Amino acid sequence: MSDLTLLEKWFGILDTIGINEDGSTSRLGYTDTEDKMIEAVVGISDECGLKHYKDEAGNTFIHNGSGDGDYTIIGSHLDSVVQGGKFDGVSGVLAGLLILKKIEEQKLNIPVKVGIFRMEESSVFGIASVGSKLITGNLEEASLKKASNPESVSLYDIMTKRGYSTSPAMIKNLKQYFELHIEQGRVLEAKGLPLGIVSSIAAPVRMWIKFTGNQDHSGATPMDLRKDSLVGAAELITALETFGKEELSNASVATTGIVRNTPNVFNVVPGETLLGIDIRGIDKESRERVVQNTEKKAAAIAEKRGLKCDISRVSQSDPVKLDEELQKKLSKTAEKLGIPHMVMPSGAGHDAMFFTKLCPVGMIFIPCKEGISHSKEEHAEIEDIVTGCKVLWDYLLTS
Amino acid sequence: MSDLTLLEKWFGILDTIGINEDGSTSRLGYTDTEDKMIEAVVGISDECGLKHYKDEAGNTFIHNGSGDGDYTIIGSHLDSVVQGGKFDGVSGVLAGLLILKKIEEQKLNIPVKVGIFRMEESSVFGIASVGSKLITGNLEEASLKKASNPESVSLYDIMTKRGYSTSPAMIKNLKQYFELHIEQGRVLEAKGLPLGIVSSIAAPVRMWIKFTGNQDHSGATPMDLRKDSLVGAAELITALETFGKEELSNASVATTGIVRNTPNVFNVVPGETLLGIDIRGIDKESRERVVQNTEKKAAAIAEKRGLKCDISRVSQSDPVKLDEELQKKLSKTAEKLGIPHMVMPSGAGHDAMFFTKLCPVGMIFIPCKEGISHSKEEHAEIEDIVTGCKVLWDYLLTS
Repeated sequence: MSDLTLLEKWFGILDTIGINEDGSTSRLGYTDTEDKMIEAVVGISDECGLKHYKDEAGNTFIHNGSGDGDYTIIGSHLDSVVQGGKFDGVSGVLAGLLILKKIEEQKLNIPVKVGIFRMEESSVFGIASVGSKLITGNLEEASLKKASNPESVSLYDIMTKRGYSTSPAMIKNLKQYFELHIEQGRVLEAKGLPLGIVSSIAAPVRMWIKFTGNQDHSGATPMDLRKDSLVGAAELITALETFGKEELSNASVATTGIVRNTPNVFNVVPGETLLGIDIRGIDKESRERVVQNTEKKAAAIAEKRGLKCDISRVSQSDPVKLDEELQKKLSKTAEKLGIPHMVMPSGAGHDAMFFTKLCPVGMIFIPCKEGISHSKEEHAEIEDIVTGCKVLWDYLLTS
Repeated sequence: MSDLTLLEKWFGILDTIGINEDGSTSRLGYTDTEDKMIEAVVGISDECGLKHYKDEAGNTFIHNGSGDGDYTIIGSHLDSVVQGGKFDGVSGVLAGLLILKKIEEQKLNIPVKVGIFRMEESSVFGIASVGSKLITGNLEEASLKKASNPESVSLYDIMTKRGYSTSPAMIKNLKQYFELHIEQGRVLEAKGLPLGIVSSIAAPVRMWIKFTGNQDHSGATPMDLRKDSLVGAAELITALETFGKEELSNASVATTGIVRNTPNVFNVVPGETLLGIDIRGIDKESRERVVQNTEKKAAAIAEKRGLKCDISRVSQSDPVKLDEELQKKLSKTAEKLGIPHMVMPSGAGHDAMFFTKLCPVGMIFIPCKEGISHSKEEHAEIEDIVTGCKVLWDYLLTS
């Protein structure tokens, strides 16, 4: 079976898990659906004669039992956002599996583990890459206690209930880390390139901003006697867009992803509106300007409108540079194989970034259609995953 | 037992139904909770030796069996908004019951029915006063089919499932209609008056406005390549406030009460945002200016941002003038009893307004604390309900 056919088959197996009626995927981290995804991939790896184990945080590692020495991880994640796509994360895990299968079949002495990291997506709790952060010393237990879902259940409680440790042992003996991922942007498609070598990864600051006003009757409360939390929040949403646009040349972005409005009915002036805000950049100073502007603006709106305003930073991680030596080597490998490519930054965060303190990290992007991701429209060509695998495979064989 | 003590006792009985942990009430129309409220009031009326029946739409009428001739209704509702208060609607029903009890005790020949009308609040479906509209010919079955809750169940389906008719028989033989209600505004409190005689009732236009853009990755999508439905919606929310404020002197008001944002997670640029908008006035032209401005602005925002925009009017009723003769008579009665009062418009809608085509309608306001309503902070003095009842009672005895 060709690599292409094999990957298509594997995607087909996963296509039955966590799929919504509209064809989008909802495979949230630390849920039964994510468990099913992991079990399905482990099932595939069993058929390939591979072994696996789970760490204390619930991350799964697939390997060929080739000893306890230093090893290479090829990793990514299997969870998705709410109404997400089929390629985000999954492409990288299956790419790793394809390579490990080849190593096993050819009985090569290249110690590789496929890493499947839990809850890479921050949709619900506002914390990204929980599994990889925990085992690389990038996430405090206290943050897991603070992060809670709309039903007020903390991530700490969820993990504990599922039997996972919220302060697991650190990962050891890493030689290097690789991740293949869809670009989730339009650059490769626009340039007609099948491959990107990632130079740096942007990182988000996540904030909750809550406006509290007076919950009043929407018919009997004159316009000049209102303290409408939603209008205050709306002012901030438009301002945030402006702050993001001002940093366009520095590649920072700013998004209000979440609105929770109370009581959210026709005939009541909203009394409490909570915004979930995501500000990212590869340039830390640029990103911090957006954060500062947002905090100042929120306070000014509250002051002007007689609202109460509570701001809390949910999570914050630093943008990282990936290993320059690896970038050069991966570029050379692609050149040798005649694969057109470019070196580029990543706007999205990835599990890869948290391994940079432990070992050299390399990352490969493949194009996705119109740059769309986190959507049912997300699409990548399996052929491009195969191309990415060729580069990783050749590099592992020759390095 | 004094009227005050009796009303306190009755409020106490209802205080066990549909109460949230924070002390607010959630007694939504056509739910089991509203049923329980009606059953409790019917239970009280049974103890008073009164009779009752239910009409095809589920409205309940309490009476003393005094024949089939023309009769007076004293009516209101027992449902509340989500997280509402204890006095909105309930005050008027209990006031009616107090008066009917007196008539029964004194064996007077004054045919009065207490009307309990279903789903006066429009919180969920965007249609107010469903019960009273249906039996006065003010609501089409088609509107009930179009109105649906967040779970996409139509009001038509809910009513049908509960065994009610969505095209019930019209109410007949009305001599006059009275309603006592909390003001839900700050005018009486500011003037230190215990009583208002209502001259006219504002009415709402309700609209859904949906913006559709592109659901994208919040990290990997540059600011200039976004079609963010939420930022478009936010622009409209702030504009709507301005349109409302421009009509301050005409007493129109404009509220965005509902935001439903999709997918509403941290790491996705929102792709679809639905706004529920409520625009009210006693001056129809002023209200229409706000509606027109809102529709134009929504279209302009969509055009500018490359979004799709769908606008639908959920419901629309006309502001009404109440019977001038009754206003004068109620004022005279209050004067005679030495009760300070004023004639005033109502910003909120009430069941009363839909009976104006069938018979003379009179309405009495009592103050509520700081004008707050549709909130757990809603509070009225039982003493003021007693004062209102005195006026209605004296009028019925002497007219």
